[in-house]
Amino acid sequence: MTDFGEDDFFVASLKGVILKINPSVWIIDITHRIPSFDIQTTSFILLASYKYFPPQTIFLVVVDPGVGSERKILFARTKEYYFIAPDNGVLSLVLEEEEVEDLREITNEKYFLPDLSHTFEGRDKMAPAAAWISKGVPCSEFGPAKSSFEKLDVEKPQLKGTEIVGHVLYQDKFGNLITDIPARMLEDIGGKTGRKSIDLVIRGKKISSFMQSYSSAKRGELLFLVGSVGTIEITAREESASKKLQAGIGDEVRVCVRRPIKNLHG
Amino acid sequence: MTDFGEDDFFVASLKGVILKINPSVWIIDITHRIPSFDIQTTSFILLASYKYFPPQTIFLVVVDPGVGSERKILFARTKEYYFIAPDNGVLSLVLEEEEVEDLREITNEKYFLPDLSHTFEGRDKMAPAAAWISKGVPCSEFGPAKSSFEKLDVEKPQLKGTEIVGHVLYQDKFGNLITDIPARMLEDIGGKTGRKSIDLVIRGKKISSFMQSYSSAKRGELLFLVGSVGTIEITAREESASKKLQAGIGDEVRVCVRRPIKNLHG
Amino acid sequence: MTDFGEDDFFVASLKGVILKINPSVWIIDITHRIPSFDIQTTSFILLASYKYFPPQTIFLVVVDPGVGSERKILFARTKEYYFIAPDNGVLSLVLEEEEVEDLREITNEKYFLPDLSHTFEGRDKMAPAAAWISKGVPCSEFGPAKSSFEKLDVEKPQLKGTEIVGHVLYQDKFGNLITDIPARMLEDIGGKTGRKSIDLVIRGKKISSFMQSYSSAKRGELLFLVGSVGTIEITAREESASKKLQAGIGDEVRVCVRRPIKNLHG
Repeated sequence: MTDFGEDDFFVASLKGVILKINPSVWIIDITHRIPSFDIQTTSFILLASYKYFPPQTIFLVVVDPGVGSERKILFARTKEYYFIAPDNGVLSLVLEEEEVEDLREITNEKYFLPDLSHTFEGRDKMAPAAAWISKGVPCSEFGPAKSSFEKLDVEKPQLKGTEIVGHVLYQDKFGNLITDIPARMLEDIGGKTGRKSIDLVIRGKKISSFMQSYSSAKRGELLFLVGSVGTIEITAREESASKKLQAGIGDEVRVCVRRPIKNLHG
Repeated sequence: MTDFGEDDFFVASLKGVILKINPSVWIIDITHRIPSFDIQTTSFILLASYKYFPPQTIFLVVVDPGVGSERKILFARTKEYYFIAPDNGVLSLVLEEEEVEDLREITNEKYFLPDLSHTFEGRDKMAPAAAWISKGVPCSEFGPAKSSFEKLDVEKPQLKGTEIVGHVLYQDKFGNLITDIPARMLEDIGGKTGRKSIDLVIRGKKISSFMQSYSSAKRGELLFLVGSVGTIEITAREESASKKLQAGIGDEVRVCVRRPIKNLHG
Repeated sequence: MTDFGEDDFFVASLKGVILKINPSVWIIDITHRIPSFDIQTTSFILLASYKYFPPQTIFLVVVDPGVGSERKILFARTKEYYFIAPDNGVLSLVLEEEEVEDLREITNEKYFLPDLSHTFEGRDKMAPAAAWISKGVPCSEFGPAKSSFEKLDVEKPQLKGTEIVGHVLYQDKFGNLITDIPARMLEDIGGKTGRKSIDLVIRGKKISSFMQSYSSAKRGELLFLVGSVGTIEITAREESASKKLQAGIGDEVRVCVRRPIKNLHG
């Protein structure tokens, strides 16, 4: 997973380096189309996809604005997986979910390419380290233990009375807006009142259709649902919710129990 | 093959799911850049590429505007291949060419992921089913037999006297316009008269160069030829025929025998 | 490596053809996003990536403006690798670096697909030949020996007194400008004087920061360094040097020893 794009020779170089060390490893692309240097998007896409991969998968994440600087190269082993990345926050979401069993800084030049550039540590240090891990080299070989790692400063969704305040975390190719509000938080405000009694507000617009799937709506109708990553997602059937709402990453999202209309004569 | 694009976590999730079930399967991308929800383009690209793949290939096609609705998940076994897709017409062109030996609806939850979303059945149902097929689970395990499937309403090229009337089916990256007129249909109108006696008309413009290959023409010259999928293709050497003609998918194409200039004094 | 893009069925067809002949071969994409027919970019990207791949890698390069013409299909075996490509210059940079041990024209129809199109020799001739090579068919089987091949007419960087005059060879996704001036040439003009005494001039603008890595600079600052392919590279930290300089492929680049300010009273 990188921000290298697919036009250049960067991704191919990484793969060549890996296969030269371990010709029998599988290489699967998560994406190489992360916006340049975008640590937050990287950490979200990794979070959304990693747990579908088999145990023992080695995740190599090269989104690295600080290449050549003093930032460390991080190596985390969790119960099921391995992660290699610059220590700049890209692993912070995934390592919140996983129990870290071994955390190290990769420093051992024995596992680097012999000729090091100062501008492409993905190729020269991280890819070879990943390949050597796949060959069974023990974690402790790669460098000294670390006790902490860089974390993104991420605002968590807040429960405020009968309202949840969260944010758009990601906008996908279809224009769906994925929020950081987990489905289970809905129980805190209106789990008992059922799907029909919850509204969502974004950019001053209220959406009242809380449905099960895209196809429950009319074409182009705005709705929200529990998306494929388990959080509230705003969508418009076969159209772009993002365009319709002029909304995107970072926008505030409020979810609240619908106030019953008072019975004036009650 | 999907319309997921390559920016998001969708394709990676599918691949992870498959490899978790069968870590020794090969995964080859046909394309993930189908225009969103475009069933016709999907069915054409599948048709143009599938027969080059080895026997026993499992084709997983996730272009699925009706995700979460009542549309079925289709599983077709032909003499050489397996196909899994939503039952929305994406398989209709390929299943015209292949003899279907077993046709089923995939319903058996045993072969789905344990936690089902309502918005990503590609990941939760279709990808695991594909992986289980690759492990040798018999077709009959996946669900009940079906007797029919959704078909695209596609107009076939017509022979009208000395003229064939067809349409542009696909526009490729180079701007070539691939039509639905198979090369063998030319025999019906002028096979005997030879290559030089056939004209093509599109958007009111007549093209008279019917050649063997792109390189037979001058740079930028419009011509037509028998393309790599076996149908008439309109092209301009090293330039975009589409731009030159302001033409695209769906445009009518007429191919006819050139009328000899009357000999006035004959 | 092709200029086919990723939208169409072209790349998938190549891969299917290869796997049908040799189902146990690894296929790695270098890139399919070469600008259409751009032989110079192809030859650079191949040069920048090939040596990171394992010995015995077979490089299949299909950037082929002359498809269907009389241009030959080239097959080169070097000490470590195999290369298959149209004989149009795409291999010229890489074959300057490698010692060619066997050079042939691929003509043996036994190793082609049975049905040949005139517009897709990548699929019908080159991909099957590559697959047969991977199966161990000896080079001599594919066609007659050749004594020469097409070369790009590339201007080499020149040493002119205390100045090196070169060109921008490639612009990457991040807007970095990769030149053709190898780092070792700097020794010819100022190796002894150290990093601080060298200037670079491009499009009339002088850049005086010659650094080790991107991160040595302030955000957006223009600098130059020895890039990951071993040549001088012009860059701007986390911004596009290309945009900042309005510069791109082919632009002249001059590197010279900084003239010391004369001591008027010396």
